[in-house]
Amino acid sequence: MASDPSVSSDTARLETFADGVMAIAITLLILEVKIPHTEESLTTALAAQWPSYAGYVVSFLTIGIIWVNHHQMFKLIGHVTHGFLMLNVIFLMTIAFLPFPTALVADYIKVPDARTAATVVYGLNMVAVAVMFNVVWRSASRGGRLLISGVDHAGIDRISKSYLGGPIAYTIATLVALVSPFLSLGIFAAMALFWLLPSSGVDFASTIGES
Amino acid sequence: MASDPSVSSDTARLETFADGVMAIAITLLILEVKIPHTEESLTTALAAQWPSYAGYVVSFLTIGIIWVNHHQMFKLIGHVTHGFLMLNVIFLMTIAFLPFPTALVADYIKVPDARTAATVVYGLNMVAVAVMFNVVWRSASRGGRLLISGVDHAGIDRISKSYLGGPIAYTIATLVALVSPFLSLGIFAAMALFWLLPSSGVDFASTIGES
Amino acid sequence: MASDPSVSSDTARLETFADGVMAIAITLLILEVKIPHTEESLTTALAAQWPSYAGYVVSFLTIGIIWVNHHQMFKLIGHVTHGFLMLNVIFLMTIAFLPFPTALVADYIKVPDARTAATVVYGLNMVAVAVMFNVVWRSASRGGRLLISGVDHAGIDRISKSYLGGPIAYTIATLVALVSPFLSLGIFAAMALFWLLPSSGVDFASTIGES
Amino acid sequence: MASDPSVSSDTARLETFADGVMAIAITLLILEVKIPHTEESLTTALAAQWPSYAGYVVSFLTIGIIWVNHHQMFKLIGHVTHGFLMLNVIFLMTIAFLPFPTALVADYIKVPDARTAATVVYGLNMVAVAVMFNVVWRSASRGGRLLISGVDHAGIDRISKSYLGGPIAYTIATLVALVSPFLSLGIFAAMALFWLLPSSGVDFASTIGES
Repeated sequence: MASDPSVSSDTARLETFADGVMAIAITLLILEVKIPHTEESLTTALAAQWPSYAGYVVSFLTIGIIWVNHHQMFKLIGHVTHGFLMLNVIFLMTIAFLPFPTALVADYIKVPDARTAATVVYGLNMVAVAVMFNVVWRSASRGGRLLISGVDHAGIDRISKSYLGGPIAYTIATLVALVSPFLSLGIFAAMALFWLLPSSGVDFASTIGES
Repeated sequence: MASDPSVSSDTARLETFADGVMAIAITLLILEVKIPHTEESLTTALAAQWPSYAGYVVSFLTIGIIWVNHHQMFKLIGHVTHGFLMLNVIFLMTIAFLPFPTALVADYIKVPDARTAATVVYGLNMVAVAVMFNVVWRSASRGGRLLISGVDHAGIDRISKSYLGGPIAYTIATLVALVSPFLSLGIFAAMALFWLLPSSGVDFASTIGES
Repeated sequence: MASDPSVSSDTARLETFADGVMAIAITLLILEVKIPHTEESLTTALAAQWPSYAGYVVSFLTIGIIWVNHHQMFKLIGHVTHGFLMLNVIFLMTIAFLPFPTALVADYIKVPDARTAATVVYGLNMVAVAVMFNVVWRSASRGGRLLISGVDHAGIDRISKSYLGGPIAYTIATLVALVSPFLSLGIFAAMALFWLLPSSGVDFASTIGES
Repeated sequence: MASDPSVSSDTARLETFADGVMAIAITLLILEVKIPHTEESLTTALAAQWPSYAGYVVSFLTIGIIWVNHHQMFKLIGHVTHGFLMLNVIFLMTIAFLPFPTALVADYIKVPDARTAATVVYGLNMVAVAVMFNVVWRSASRGGRLLISGVDHAGIDRISKSYLGGPIAYTIATLVALVSPFLSLGIFAAMALFWLLPSSGVDFASTIGES
């Protein structure tokens, strides 16, 4: 399969690698949920670390949504170049970093002096992921150069516009953290839940003329 | 492969991602088995942490069984939608969480005041996995909308019914933990061993009319 | 691909899952090599933890050799059953356990009272891997029931015999640990190096009549 | 797929395994970025551990570049042998080791007495990766024995020469560490950034006669 020098083989191996990194990053999130070591009630100790569970859920759903979108994006991409592979490596670098700020927020959300810094780091990581997602898409779609044939130009523009929502929304949520870290995290959670909804997906089928 | 906008490609990439998350979650379980640090007999110290090995085995077999069943289920699924991908992400979120309650039970099973709480958390995680497994199946099979063609409706109903056993059995085992954590864990272990048996598999072949 | 209910699809997904677990177990080995925390010379501290590096290399090569052999074995396997999948899950459970005894040996090889126990645990894990490898092969090859067509029976017997060498050699090395842990580990290392050699591979090509 | 005894199947499974190990090693790098535990300003503590972030970025990009090059190399490889698989296992062993020296450098770069040793270990690991990459390529290309048909000999020589740059550059950067660890790490970072550039890729397309 990959020994065949065709373009499709390239896309397949990139997708496999990207899926691997995303699957690992999403699964490593559980390592930040620590076993409480307490002499008192385990139930109380477990309840007290709710930020760890919340962080796990929000970051898991966010990476899951990015995976679904990456998956959708690659239905339109048919070619890769050296530079495009490298942009994907940088994109994956931002995703693989997420377990760090997730643990940071979980550990410091209860510390008044530190929660703003932790939330801003989390937000900046999210912004970096969303920006790199757009960079990858624009690199592939500019002039349609890496897309499969038969893709409708109006559809590409519609997708490009819809992807811009990510960096904008994450930047706003990050700025909100400077005023209220809790509100900021609430926005990140709300965005993860919103993008779970079926109707929030971009209509790719019409872009490529499927029935 | 994945650059082709067909439905089959979608299923392949979902299965690859799910396999990745399940393979990682199952392998991360070993990280909860800690090296004992002791000044006395290493043999004694190794023997004393038997709950860690038991937890490793039961959770490993359970994830392995879920993987086999997921694998079987996807032999009948031929299409995916945005919402269906998202349900799978939530399903994977419950599986990737398992290393946490596994370590929790291993650490607290010897602490009389804490073992009930630890076992209930373990059981609730198992119930969540089994419920999401059913949700994924029902989302795909409702009206046969995401199934491959040629699937027999009576067979679908039979599978749907057989899958209901999981959440019911896990809920009972979890409730038992309130009375006896050891009995509850014994039931989880017995279920893992039972589902290992060849005869416990649902007869998928007849559902899709194979010889 | 996996949405097709054929037998070949089953084998592919099992191999992907097995490769995933083996790739993760082999890569997690690095987590047992700890950063030394020392106030004195870092060079001395790094040199002092040579057992960690040796354990990393021996376990890495061993899992790598198992992966190559698993890969070779599956060139002859064309069908899977529920029971066969489960046997593979148990086989993978023994491989995924290896990071634990590897770290155990690295931590205790310098402690005279503990090194025997640590080495025996390491050896028992190796024996379990080799036994399960044989169980998987025999389950597939008994009466040729899960093999691809055109496999030569004399070849199957030759492979079955060659595989028996693993459990026997590992059992001997484990028994040696009771007398001399260092000699035992030397044997495990020597076996890993021996199996690296090209000539040690079973001649699969002739079994399936390749040119 | 893998149940078919053809050569292409072998290459596919090797690539999948290699991709898995590289995807895991690259994602495990985040585990060396520790959550600071501080009573003072979290912002200051986060800023103080800049070597961790720098190490993460340089090692991530380096593994990413190796992955892209491995991917390119395998477009020309059509066959595998037992010995070739084993050489790939040793190659992967050097990559999977990288999280260790990355953490070592991050922890000791601020300790004047230890930073040279840490940087030399990092450099030696990089040299080992680059040497094994060349060994894998030479094993496959010697006499063209494992290459796909139609590969141009002048092109093979050109690739062989271009790959030699890696071990030489990494050896020089490692020797520089004996004089100045910071300059050495700067060279490793500069090489990672340089190889990100599109124009630094070897022109594989012309080697295999693509349009």
